[in-house]
Amino acid sequence: MARDENGALKPGATIGILGGGQLGRMLALDAARLGFKIHIFCPDTGPAFDVSAAHTQADYEDEAALIRFASEVDLVTYEFENVPAKTAEILAKSKPLYPDAHALATTQDRLAEKTFLKNLGVPLADFAEVNSEAELLAAVRKLGRPSVLKTRRFGYDGKGQTMIREEADLAAAFAAIGSQPAVLEAFVPFEIEVSVVAARNARGEFQAFDVTENRHENHILRTSTVPAALSAETSAEALKIAGKIAEALNYVGVIGVEMFVVRENGRDQVLVNELAPRVHNSGHWTQDGAETSQFEQHIRAIAGWPLGSPKRLGRSEMTNLLGDEVHAWQQLAASPGVHIHLYGKGAARPGRKMGHINRLTPED
Amino acid sequence: MARDENGALKPGATIGILGGGQLGRMLALDAARLGFKIHIFCPDTGPAFDVSAAHTQADYEDEAALIRFASEVDLVTYEFENVPAKTAEILAKSKPLYPDAHALATTQDRLAEKTFLKNLGVPLADFAEVNSEAELLAAVRKLGRPSVLKTRRFGYDGKGQTMIREEADLAAAFAAIGSQPAVLEAFVPFEIEVSVVAARNARGEFQAFDVTENRHENHILRTSTVPAALSAETSAEALKIAGKIAEALNYVGVIGVEMFVVRENGRDQVLVNELAPRVHNSGHWTQDGAETSQFEQHIRAIAGWPLGSPKRLGRSEMTNLLGDEVHAWQQLAASPGVHIHLYGKGAARPGRKMGHINRLTPED
Repeated sequence: MARDENGALKPGATIGILGGGQLGRMLALDAARLGFKIHIFCPDTGPAFDVSAAHTQADYEDEAALIRFASEVDLVTYEFENVPAKTAEILAKSKPLYPDAHALATTQDRLAEKTFLKNLGVPLADFAEVNSEAELLAAVRKLGRPSVLKTRRFGYDGKGQTMIREEADLAAAFAAIGSQPAVLEAFVPFEIEVSVVAARNARGEFQAFDVTENRHENHILRTSTVPAALSAETSAEALKIAGKIAEALNYVGVIGVEMFVVRENGRDQVLVNELAPRVHNSGHWTQDGAETSQFEQHIRAIAGWPLGSPKRLGRSEMTNLLGDEVHAWQQLAASPGVHIHLYGKGAARPGRKMGHINRLTPED
Repeated sequence: MARDENGALKPGATIGILGGGQLGRMLALDAARLGFKIHIFCPDTGPAFDVSAAHTQADYEDEAALIRFASEVDLVTYEFENVPAKTAEILAKSKPLYPDAHALATTQDRLAEKTFLKNLGVPLADFAEVNSEAELLAAVRKLGRPSVLKTRRFGYDGKGQTMIREEADLAAAFAAIGSQPAVLEAFVPFEIEVSVVAARNARGEFQAFDVTENRHENHILRTSTVPAALSAETSAEALKIAGKIAEALNYVGVIGVEMFVVRENGRDQVLVNELAPRVHNSGHWTQDGAETSQFEQHIRAIAGWPLGSPKRLGRSEMTNLLGDEVHAWQQLAASPGVHIHLYGKGAARPGRKMGHINRLTPED
């Protein structure tokens, strides 16, 4: 039996992970610490293969490979939200899938996600569905300029989106995102970007890490710092929103909730930007800066274990190492207080996430 | 090129580890965080296999397998001191071996180790070589009773040793340890047992973690706590001894120096008991209780990286989970402040090291 009398997964059990990138790799490392074995399923070789007990290299559409994979693991999770729905469905037939197919379907489609958030009463920017140039024109009339056109699916790190400015040609904009089903969002003149990384287990236990302030460059996360420069009231509001979302999705695992903070007349308002049904880049600081890392927390949540304490150990700053910045490892290795996390990837292509560093400093 | 202009091993390089147990596993996990790949060489399958990029299952005497292994890695280290000298020699011919064959030879033979320590002027208990019953009798006459008879090789966790008490039959005692080449040690009426876990790299940089106090049960380590209950003066003396030993061995890697603290007329004296040319069970607290873990420190040292800070984050206690104590994982997982480390081993045989927990509490 892979489970104890409370349904918790026992150490020694095997956790299957869809995706073999750095998030899968860091999940594998922390799962190992808790005594679990990891089996990675990924169409390409990835850095998670090097730290896992087993791997299957096959397409997400390869039904036979999926069924074999499911038979060799005790539960399945994933490191990214672009898993095909059919894949999730096949796996969920024979093994628990966390977060579940509903959470996946909701968060992998920008329109479904925004509709869910709106119905839940969570504050977010106005949006409109766009399936054609004509609908884009109507949406721009409604939401004004500037506004942001984003594909419903497969967007990340700024890919699949374009800004509609005053002078923008709408036909060109729709073509720029591949003339795909899309969503137009009202532009949010935000003060700062923040995120809440939180976890919920099947018993409904919920724990959130402190609100993290995120700085992007060219749409790619550059730094995350904690605590964020927010009032206690706004922080509490952000955490409350994350809890509400996790509850409504009956969510199991770690979730990343990206938010904009808008400052008007000296008052802050939090608007949800996007959900990530997985461990999140803005939660990497927890590896060295919290009682429990987000990776361990995700494993605890999906394994049905009690959640760990999300308590902060001090002030943290996480910096992504992009492209050839990773070549500064000698200097970083000689810097006191710098915790290095490298992903073991090959070519350091421009903008590619090659690693990150965490700096923990005592509370003021 | 696997090395940079300073001779430091670049991330992406492969480190070979002899031995696939929990120490190899934890080395592999931390090596991965620094971007290294791990190749385990071990005659049996072990828990390190599950977290490593490659493994070779072959005997330490299998020369062809050793040569192939050496050709696939950039350097070699080990997780235990019972690697045959011939194995070390074969590997060292084609790849750097850290700690080197001299350190290995010195520390895997109790007589060689004690002779080295004595010549270095390091305080230790009186000892005598024993190769026969007759030599045992002479040794007991010289060192008195009680005294401890230990095999020169392959002793660990109290295996291969026997106490010579007032009434002991010397022939039976010599037979009890297998009538092997042995060492008789004067019994040390110690107050506490402590250890220094320290690292040295090829540039001669040396860093030691704080002195750790160790409690054994049935010759197996039960708890390690830091700081040890020692005066600042005695602690400094213990650290100084470790530095002297590492220097004299021209040591590269993490070394564990086990010591007895003897209290006489209110004054503490430190006597070296034993050296371990590897990461050490009494250093496991560093995973959650120090700026750098002993595992990362070992990898840094052998890779020619600058050493990390050994600074303590607070007070730590490490407790080994032996045999079926590991089955308390549910309770441990629900205990605030407990960091769980499980080794992914199968059968929880009595006394088998299945995992450990670390508790970190703020400094008084």
